[in-house]
Amino acid sequence: MAGTDSTRTNTDHLEQNAPAIILSHPQLGENIGMVARAMLNCGLTDLRLVNPRDEWPNEAAVKACSGATVVLDNARVFSCTEEAIADLNKVYATTARSRDMTKDVYTPNGAIKETRSFLANGAQCGFLMGREAKGLNNDDIALADAIVQVPLNPSFSSLNLAQAVLVMGYEWYQSGDVTPDKEFTFPEDTRLANKQELVYLFEHLESELDETGFLYPPEKRPVMVRNIRNIFQRANLTEQEVRTLRGVIKKLSRKA
Amino acid sequence: MAGTDSTRTNTDHLEQNAPAIILSHPQLGENIGMVARAMLNCGLTDLRLVNPRDEWPNEAAVKACSGATVVLDNARVFSCTEEAIADLNKVYATTARSRDMTKDVYTPNGAIKETRSFLANGAQCGFLMGREAKGLNNDDIALADAIVQVPLNPSFSSLNLAQAVLVMGYEWYQSGDVTPDKEFTFPEDTRLANKQELVYLFEHLESELDETGFLYPPEKRPVMVRNIRNIFQRANLTEQEVRTLRGVIKKLSRKA
Repeated sequence: MAGTDSTRTNTDHLEQNAPAIILSHPQLGENIGMVARAMLNCGLTDLRLVNPRDEWPNEAAVKACSGATVVLDNARVFSCTEEAIADLNKVYATTARSRDMTKDVYTPNGAIKETRSFLANGAQCGFLMGREAKGLNNDDIALADAIVQVPLNPSFSSLNLAQAVLVMGYEWYQSGDVTPDKEFTFPEDTRLANKQELVYLFEHLESELDETGFLYPPEKRPVMVRNIRNIFQRANLTEQEVRTLRGVIKKLSRKA
Repeated sequence: MAGTDSTRTNTDHLEQNAPAIILSHPQLGENIGMVARAMLNCGLTDLRLVNPRDEWPNEAAVKACSGATVVLDNARVFSCTEEAIADLNKVYATTARSRDMTKDVYTPNGAIKETRSFLANGAQCGFLMGREAKGLNNDDIALADAIVQVPLNPSFSSLNLAQAVLVMGYEWYQSGDVTPDKEFTFPEDTRLANKQELVYLFEHLESELDETGFLYPPEKRPVMVRNIRNIFQRANLTEQEVRTLRGVIKKLSRKA
């Protein structure tokens, strides 16, 4: 069964002072399970349920959590939103913008940036999410410091509960992550080619091409050579790949 | 039934030159439906299916798409990945990092930034996603220009298919969106208070407090006044709220 072994999922490496996710009146256990999965994906473990409609603990939630049982096992149930957020210092209501409310409205990215600054000052933060379909009521929103609204296709903007949690969790995890936007990776048993290896490759290819007459006429040779060299410069070759290409050139030349 | 009316969902306002989502060998129709929903949430409409396991069109997909039938209706089915991506110029494989591949690995944000720059040069781009559980095979990855890997909790990093699509779509939509990180909103029938209204409020409160002896002793009055003024300055009051607060002060004073 999904998740049977994973009550032992290690969470020690996660940030301890991470925001809570508070679900107000969630209905389907399956959705709570998918929320737990999205939370653990993003390093969040503090799940709070306000008056879940169905029984708790909930078997459908366990089945849907794909092994994120550590989140479900530690989830706390409260009878009202005030109790669920009592220990928190800052609460963001994730909801469609309410035109009747006088309130700050954040993007997920903006809310997470502010959350980071509050957390750095020792504050506890949470994101309050409404029930499926209906969302948060205005009394819940009035308990929150601010609104978070996800910018989405205005003619089709309704996210399901777990997807809304994933967006907040994704922004949270990215804000604490240092992975470079782009990283070149290669197998451990090789390394990037150095410039000498590349020049030998180029000269090998060019000498073979000279023999075939491909680099003719002589006045065009410099630009042709530069163009071909640029192709291979862009390929970010490893030492192993340079050897492979030299083998390719050798074989093709002999065939000729 | 979910989505019955929404084949007429208007997509004219969406960016025309948006990336395609290519699902390689998807299994459950339900997941394809949830992918369609996440795509339309994020303004993506070009869905391509490589050898879906179950029949197509698929009733489970329609039920799970929550009305994003415009995406399902326009989805195209191909018998191999090469065909599905033939017209694209740049393809990113969304997968766990392959330690055996010599390849650029992007974050979703990094990949979308590069996608924007390619699209600006007229290139067509796509994101290739593997089947549930197994992900992409190495031949599919070798057809892609680069890998996209989502930085997530390393001990629990597996996203479901629709969530992986949502992450890419979310980054796509945000990269083209100009919503400010934080915006103060209030009902249309009011406006932010101006400084004269605020000073009148402060002076009203302070004169009532002077009468009660709250601002005593006189040498502490200036700092107490500044502290109280700062509370209300931070509240970003509207003109309507200033009037409400003046009513509150008046009533409380009379009660005393």
